[in-house]
Amino acid sequence: MTQPGMLGLIAGGGMMPVRVADAAAKTGRPVFCVLIQGFAMPADFERFPHEVVPLGQIGRMLGLMRGHGAEELVLAGRVARPSLLSFRFDTEGLRLVGKLGKRAIFGGDDGLLSAVLRLIEEEGFQVRGAQEVLGDLMVEAGVLTAQAPDALQRADIARGIAVAHALGVADVGQCCVVQQGLVIASSAIEGTDALLARCAELRREGPGGVLVKLVKPRQDIRADLPVIGPETVRGAVAAGLAGIAIEARSGVAGTLVVDREETVAAADAAGIFLCAVQPHQFLAEENAK
Amino acid sequence: MTQPGMLGLIAGGGMMPVRVADAAAKTGRPVFCVLIQGFAMPADFERFPHEVVPLGQIGRMLGLMRGHGAEELVLAGRVARPSLLSFRFDTEGLRLVGKLGKRAIFGGDDGLLSAVLRLIEEEGFQVRGAQEVLGDLMVEAGVLTAQAPDALQRADIARGIAVAHALGVADVGQCCVVQQGLVIASSAIEGTDALLARCAELRREGPGGVLVKLVKPRQDIRADLPVIGPETVRGAVAAGLAGIAIEARSGVAGTLVVDREETVAAADAAGIFLCAVQPHQFLAEENAK
Repeated sequence: MTQPGMLGLIAGGGMMPVRVADAAAKTGRPVFCVLIQGFAMPADFERFPHEVVPLGQIGRMLGLMRGHGAEELVLAGRVARPSLLSFRFDTEGLRLVGKLGKRAIFGGDDGLLSAVLRLIEEEGFQVRGAQEVLGDLMVEAGVLTAQAPDALQRADIARGIAVAHALGVADVGQCCVVQQGLVIASSAIEGTDALLARCAELRREGPGGVLVKLVKPRQDIRADLPVIGPETVRGAVAAGLAGIAIEARSGVAGTLVVDREETVAAADAAGIFLCAVQPHQFLAEENAK
Repeated sequence: MTQPGMLGLIAGGGMMPVRVADAAAKTGRPVFCVLIQGFAMPADFERFPHEVVPLGQIGRMLGLMRGHGAEELVLAGRVARPSLLSFRFDTEGLRLVGKLGKRAIFGGDDGLLSAVLRLIEEEGFQVRGAQEVLGDLMVEAGVLTAQAPDALQRADIARGIAVAHALGVADVGQCCVVQQGLVIASSAIEGTDALLARCAELRREGPGGVLVKLVKPRQDIRADLPVIGPETVRGAVAAGLAGIAIEARSGVAGTLVVDREETVAAADAAGIFLCAVQPHQFLAEENAK
């Protein structure tokens, strides 16, 4: 059997990166972590060899990975794209940014991310998706909770799918909240937690709304797949929502559910629904009614 | 000369409705106002005959208008669509809602508004746009301020136009904030002031972003044209923006600028730009670069 080589983790914010490191370590695989300064918390990675590197120092990041013998990289976690001026580029970083060009940098997040991934691969690394290490966090189409969406909520989900796709095609956000046909909030760079927090004020009387969180049409599945977890459920409950609709597995993409048992249990405890949909099929079914 | 008849004003929130009433009164035209409960402030309308009516009591609204001899109506001001369950419909209201049907009610705000306007006209009223009374609040394409957008800001405006159009086609919002190519915030039902308020936290270092506020593609121009004014400029300045781009007059539609002199003066005092664009032409020029 071939010894699995060192896994290099480039870690942003949130709980996903440390989950990836833990999952790799559990299989006996060594992990070296580059923590992106200001996003990943060093305290979370104490049990792994790691270095903290500013976002612009791409040369140093890749050099560290090479130095530790990591040929396979995983990029995980939230990195809100900062001002380009706040990058402290090293020479390699500047060279790579020069190669990316204006179109990628100003063309939206997906464009930038895809270009960065392509560049890393040109440097001789292989980039894996977090889900290749974490195992399967996607779910099949269906209702995961005791509660299922009723006719009104299904109509809200359908509207949310249409809106999320419009946002996604424009490469803006990937989630929105719809209540009684009305779009209460649509996402840009704020996280889902912030989006849900403002819904508490914006929501209307009567039946609660639905959070719809889907994969962007042009999303690079090796990074940045949408994620929900127990925290999302808590935010949805606090916002008075009736449920959450996510994207079911579709080929290699889908919304990831972390801590699935806890997530479903939290939704059931609050009496809200969680369902996974195939967006186009769901729309076709709703429109046929 | 024919005496101009009574003008009926159905007033929502914000400063637009009282401006309409003042403008009509200034020309010697009598005005009767129906203030939508919870949106229009009675204190603002003390000098006009008025009644406060809950949103669902459409029969009462139209009855009051008939009783006061108002055949021409203007709908003005912000009415965030409430829960349908919170409407206290009167008989006429229920009948009209029955006629509207599910498609209009759940099809997004523009669909609902157009259907309501059509119904009011079927009841024998003529609906005028606020701008027919207020005079011309639209502006021609060009820069209104001492500052003009530079190349980076023009790129942000172009991205904002693409995003605002995607939002508008999905009948969600009509404005967004873009900074250095990144969409910082996109609007749903929250007002522009709330959108700008959250940008203070979300913005990046370096050159400030741009607020782009356009006419929705399917917007009924007799109500709900986008508006900016001195308050918008103050919000943009507080959010650290570099400028504001609005939609120039295009036929009968365009972004309205209230208190134009004060608005431009506030922008000039803060050193930000205000420009009006023909969106498609602007995109064509930017893409040709």
